[in-house]
Amino acid sequence: MTQFSVIGKRMPRVDGFDKVTGKAVYGTDIKLPRMLVGKILRSPLPHARILHIDTSLAKRLPGVKAVLTGLDTPQIKFGFFKHQDHKFGDCHPLKCDKVRCIGDEVAAVAAVDEDIAQEALGLIKVDYEELPPVFDPEDALKPGAPLVHEEAGSNLLTTINIVSGDVDAAFARASVVVEDSFRTQPVHPCCLEPKQAVADFSPAGTLTFYSSTQMPFFMRRDLADTVGLEESKVRVIKTTMGGHFGSRMEMHPLDPICALLSQAAGRPVRIVYTREEDFTASRFRHPMTLRLKMGASRDGKLLATDMKVTLDSGAYCSQALGVANVIGTNALLIYPLPNLRYVSDIVYTNNPYGGSFRGYGNPQGTFAVEAVIDTLAEELGLYPLELRRRNAWKSGDVSILRQVMTSCGFDQCLDEVTKRCRWDGKSSRAGQGSGLAGFLHVGGGARVHGNNDGCGAWVKVEDNGGVTLITGAQEIGQGGNTILSQIVAEELGVPLASIKVQNTDTDTMPWDLGCHASRTTFVGGNAALAAAKEAKAQLLEAAAAKLEASVGDLLIQEGKIFVAGSPERCLTIAEAAHAHHYRQGGSSVIGKAFYDPPSEEPRKGIGNRSAAYAFGFQAAELSVDGETGQVDIQKMVAAHDLGRAINPMLAEGQLEGAVVQGMGYALMEELTFDSGKIANASFADYALPSALDIPSQEIVLVESIDPQGPFGAKGLGESGLVPTAPAIANAVYAATGVRIKELPLTPEKVFNAIKRKG
Amino acid sequence: MTQFSVIGKRMPRVDGFDKVTGKAVYGTDIKLPRMLVGKILRSPLPHARILHIDTSLAKRLPGVKAVLTGLDTPQIKFGFFKHQDHKFGDCHPLKCDKVRCIGDEVAAVAAVDEDIAQEALGLIKVDYEELPPVFDPEDALKPGAPLVHEEAGSNLLTTINIVSGDVDAAFARASVVVEDSFRTQPVHPCCLEPKQAVADFSPAGTLTFYSSTQMPFFMRRDLADTVGLEESKVRVIKTTMGGHFGSRMEMHPLDPICALLSQAAGRPVRIVYTREEDFTASRFRHPMTLRLKMGASRDGKLLATDMKVTLDSGAYCSQALGVANVIGTNALLIYPLPNLRYVSDIVYTNNPYGGSFRGYGNPQGTFAVEAVIDTLAEELGLYPLELRRRNAWKSGDVSILRQVMTSCGFDQCLDEVTKRCRWDGKSSRAGQGSGLAGFLHVGGGARVHGNNDGCGAWVKVEDNGGVTLITGAQEIGQGGNTILSQIVAEELGVPLASIKVQNTDTDTMPWDLGCHASRTTFVGGNAALAAAKEAKAQLLEAAAAKLEASVGDLLIQEGKIFVAGSPERCLTIAEAAHAHHYRQGGSSVIGKAFYDPPSEEPRKGIGNRSAAYAFGFQAAELSVDGETGQVDIQKMVAAHDLGRAINPMLAEGQLEGAVVQGMGYALMEELTFDSGKIANASFADYALPSALDIPSQEIVLVESIDPQGPFGAKGLGESGLVPTAPAIANAVYAATGVRIKELPLTPEKVFNAIKRKG
Repeated sequence: MTQFSVIGKRMPRVDGFDKVTGKAVYGTDIKLPRMLVGKILRSPLPHARILHIDTSLAKRLPGVKAVLTGLDTPQIKFGFFKHQDHKFGDCHPLKCDKVRCIGDEVAAVAAVDEDIAQEALGLIKVDYEELPPVFDPEDALKPGAPLVHEEAGSNLLTTINIVSGDVDAAFARASVVVEDSFRTQPVHPCCLEPKQAVADFSPAGTLTFYSSTQMPFFMRRDLADTVGLEESKVRVIKTTMGGHFGSRMEMHPLDPICALLSQAAGRPVRIVYTREEDFTASRFRHPMTLRLKMGASRDGKLLATDMKVTLDSGAYCSQALGVANVIGTNALLIYPLPNLRYVSDIVYTNNPYGGSFRGYGNPQGTFAVEAVIDTLAEELGLYPLELRRRNAWKSGDVSILRQVMTSCGFDQCLDEVTKRCRWDGKSSRAGQGSGLAGFLHVGGGARVHGNNDGCGAWVKVEDNGGVTLITGAQEIGQGGNTILSQIVAEELGVPLASIKVQNTDTDTMPWDLGCHASRTTFVGGNAALAAAKEAKAQLLEAAAAKLEASVGDLLIQEGKIFVAGSPERCLTIAEAAHAHHYRQGGSSVIGKAFYDPPSEEPRKGIGNRSAAYAFGFQAAELSVDGETGQVDIQKMVAAHDLGRAINPMLAEGQLEGAVVQGMGYALMEELTFDSGKIANASFADYALPSALDIPSQEIVLVESIDPQGPFGAKGLGESGLVPTAPAIANAVYAATGVRIKELPLTPEKVFNAIKRKG
Repeated sequence: MTQFSVIGKRMPRVDGFDKVTGKAVYGTDIKLPRMLVGKILRSPLPHARILHIDTSLAKRLPGVKAVLTGLDTPQIKFGFFKHQDHKFGDCHPLKCDKVRCIGDEVAAVAAVDEDIAQEALGLIKVDYEELPPVFDPEDALKPGAPLVHEEAGSNLLTTINIVSGDVDAAFARASVVVEDSFRTQPVHPCCLEPKQAVADFSPAGTLTFYSSTQMPFFMRRDLADTVGLEESKVRVIKTTMGGHFGSRMEMHPLDPICALLSQAAGRPVRIVYTREEDFTASRFRHPMTLRLKMGASRDGKLLATDMKVTLDSGAYCSQALGVANVIGTNALLIYPLPNLRYVSDIVYTNNPYGGSFRGYGNPQGTFAVEAVIDTLAEELGLYPLELRRRNAWKSGDVSILRQVMTSCGFDQCLDEVTKRCRWDGKSSRAGQGSGLAGFLHVGGGARVHGNNDGCGAWVKVEDNGGVTLITGAQEIGQGGNTILSQIVAEELGVPLASIKVQNTDTDTMPWDLGCHASRTTFVGGNAALAAAKEAKAQLLEAAAAKLEASVGDLLIQEGKIFVAGSPERCLTIAEAAHAHHYRQGGSSVIGKAFYDPPSEEPRKGIGNRSAAYAFGFQAAELSVDGETGQVDIQKMVAAHDLGRAINPMLAEGQLEGAVVQGMGYALMEELTFDSGKIANASFADYALPSALDIPSQEIVLVESIDPQGPFGAKGLGESGLVPTAPAIANAVYAATGVRIKELPLTPEKVFNAIKRKG
């Protein structure tokens, strides 16, 4: 077995010291000379035509340096429609013609201080003509429904179809068929750092943009497109992130508005959302209704799945297409399956609009699938875990959508969670029970953005032995910099403390797609590893010359290069780097790599989009108070196949947090919409799990050692919350015999269901 | 003849807009949270033992956050002795044992504001025991002289010897021998931006250091060594420079003091020199006495040179060794010569100490050599220009010190200056005259720092067609970023506006030796060019595949790649970069290069230290008022061989400024020392040329097209002032018949000399 020095060790985060001492630079720490405060005037109406905006009073207020409406801007739409080769983006930074949801951006001001900016907003008069709104996606699809985007001709944004095999024939020969409907709620990522941005236009027409974005290069592209600049004139600098959970994956209207204000005022401008704005005007997990039918043979082999999803996209598209896709390609394939049909209607309404949030559709889809799997097991007279065991992924399997399971810890994860919970027969129904759910997620990137899913990395080894990894792969709070540092340190044989990471500036770092789809460890890690290998080759070459040995005879460990068998013939890394550099024709040691994983871009859902896949199971052991409907979780168990645990402590922390986030999704969180208005846009009104809600957790890291992963590792960032809600719902069913099909499982719903059941 | 799109064009500086609009970030624009003001207490005595320093009162002053003396610091010496493999550096950041010159750093404070810091300095009590000082280098070498550094055992810091050929035999057979003595004065670079630094220690023990240094990587190394940190814990960020002229080539005591204050206070600290401090405590051009003997044959061929220099190094070594070396290897070889002896005594005194300043010894040496050349011509009965013509360098020549003249515009430069001035016979001596002087300088780097003179560069071509050059080569006000951008733009066939340069951060840029020895265009330019070539190859490869053509058939121009003969078959650079990137296994376009010039490290002065050499002549046409001794320059002509003018406008500007700086050296500038105290440490007292002093200038750029230079270019940064003073002195001799052998040629000296002559 390989002996590692740094990999697999429980090492503290490399950025921890700066974070706990307040030294880390967050967006709100950026202070630029003459910087103004920007603020946005938002629509109070869910659907209305803008007849006129009078900004004259606001412009006259002393201290106001810029007032913008859509008419003052290039009026370029942005959004994911455009970037997936559709004809148009569907969102203006500032709305010109009409508003489509409460919170839509109507005007913006930049002023010398917060109070003046706020006062200026109050001086802007907007004449609206109210239009009939539509809030329910089913209603929105009816003939004659008010159109959210007239130019689209329909509120049906698009329908996604993924089909493989002959689903109808398979159902015809199935011994058991279960069909059911589910509903999931919108939940908010609740980042502690509210959305913010600082835009700094130079007189020469270049833009420096400070943003807590997960995707600096996409932010650069989208910002340039929307503000009407050549992209080469834009520089994006990523600030330290106070949480993101996927929600900072795309440009928000705030971003181009901030840039346009800076351009108009000729001064730097900062916009920071209030907590209420952050709830109201940033993205959340999409609400959906899911109708699911699954069939199995008598011996418990799954034969077919048919799912129909209606996704409420709200007023704009944002990431609805990608989110809907993930359900068809991941949630429907938690277990191998020969026939699959997936249809998803994505519907415009006048609700606020969702976007990307950790799991990206998979939590919604998995909630439905894992409920139906439990019901199928019951119908077949099998323990839930037994049905799952009979439908296990094995390493080397290829799914009907062509996903290749290069490494697979399915069985081991299932074993680990089942042996850690009490299982009292099929279902105890005595107020106490355990439930189980699995997931399938991408673990090796996701080739969905224009056919490159790569990452660039440079490893610079200085004459002093210090190593800098310069990469596009991002640290967004998940521990990316620590993992990447461990990979480079291990490969170069140097201590972790020798490694610095630089990855915040689009000007100085190589391209990376961005941080999403749990790809940093796998894709960014492979890029860093390849660059480290190239640097190491240079070091060994120099050391071989100096030590009069052949490269093949050299070993590298703990910062030293030595001749195998003669450890006294050695050089430090610093000495080797110096020898490579300080000679006629020498050069400083730099490895350069670009890693694009061996995945393929899917067409109509079919294609091996990821170079590896993540598997796992979670189980909940809980009791339900029949008098109140209150669910009390005693224990959560999570066993995840992460390929290799580069840093077990970070992996456990990531899973613990995700499980808690999943518990919030399962039991208490919900953005409540009241005629298009978010009724609980504050931490006082929006219920999140607190420290008191967190049960005992057992985290099991299953190492399947992926053949393509860096040191065998796969992605882990999102999957921790995907199976949490269905595991809890299955446990509630086990404890009570009632199946709640709408998230969250509030005491009220549980109590009513128990009462209904009698 | 090659047709260039960008090279050879008079293009405005790429950083000009930011500079004239105030957007450029200078050191004093850096504002960090909780930043303190640092101030330094300096010695009022030229030589004294420190008996005791009482900081107790200063420490008790509210608002004071740190007070340091040498005893509170690691007491690590720095200086050029150490880094050239000598036994010790000779300078402590804060002096512990004794002070060796007025201005020596004795204690330092950091406080919440400037006033408190100043008040705290006044509360520090230092008990000194005065020691006898020595100010004259000749006195310092006498037995029994007070020792500036007791541990050195002598005030003779070192003696430099460079010998080639048989000098004595050559003099014996010479027909004419001239011997004379000269004295040059200390002059100050007078950067408009006073020296400053910002140090920011993180709680994790890493140091970010903002500095207007020319040598970010050497600053990093020296700072780490002196503060007692691992170098990998230090990050140097170069701020925009408000002038440097070589004076920011080395670490000053201010730099480690600033870092130590930040470490002690646990907060960022900024030190900004007052103008008086900048005069008193930063480096200036070394004063010297030079005894020079030259011999020639009857037909005017130079046979031998013998020079003895005594260099007043002041209290510490700084760059005295390098400066003295340059005289022997450059000034003595303005003309080919078969026999050479050069001896230079470098002497400690209790004067303030000099350092690096544009020309780096060459102006002092050239002043002596070009005077003696004129005298030799007179003795031989030749016109000054005729003697020079008989001793011309030709392309391909190799000097006795092994310098290889790969390209040489000597003759053309001589022709250009002589035809642009009136020459009234040998010497008019009627108050009106013209004078001439040449120079030899390095033009292709200078391999003098540990046997690597290289530069790293990466060229990143984005999918949007934007190009970023990331390089260690520096912009220090000389126009480096413009020249490097032009080189990359030309090679890639894109407009200059497509290029950005990033070169301020030791973490994110590749290594470069730093900006000195006129090396940026040649060394940095070759690195940038090689990286651009690699990026271009990637673009052409992608374009060839897309256009179904072979790479050899493709041309690249104005941002487009097209098939030769079929311009309609074309791609933009952005499209080619996109095609290279957005495909399975693709990668973003990045060229990486490290260029180390084909020079050699000299031993005892012998070795081809530079990959190319710069030649040139200047002439002055002037009149002298016999009643006042006032010199009135009518015209300065400067013809410089710069290989190729990448940007003629910048080259002309650089030469015009240098000639004015040379005129200041020739006619008015002098730091006057009064018992070790600089008596004119202000712009009110130190005479610099003003706009009114600037005569008509004719600048001629001679293009010898160096075979190794990027597009044929060589260095030009320093040479512009090297021959100015001797050309003026020779013209004064032509006008008056008096030869002034001590700089500057003040009216008083000229008048007295004329009077003496009678």
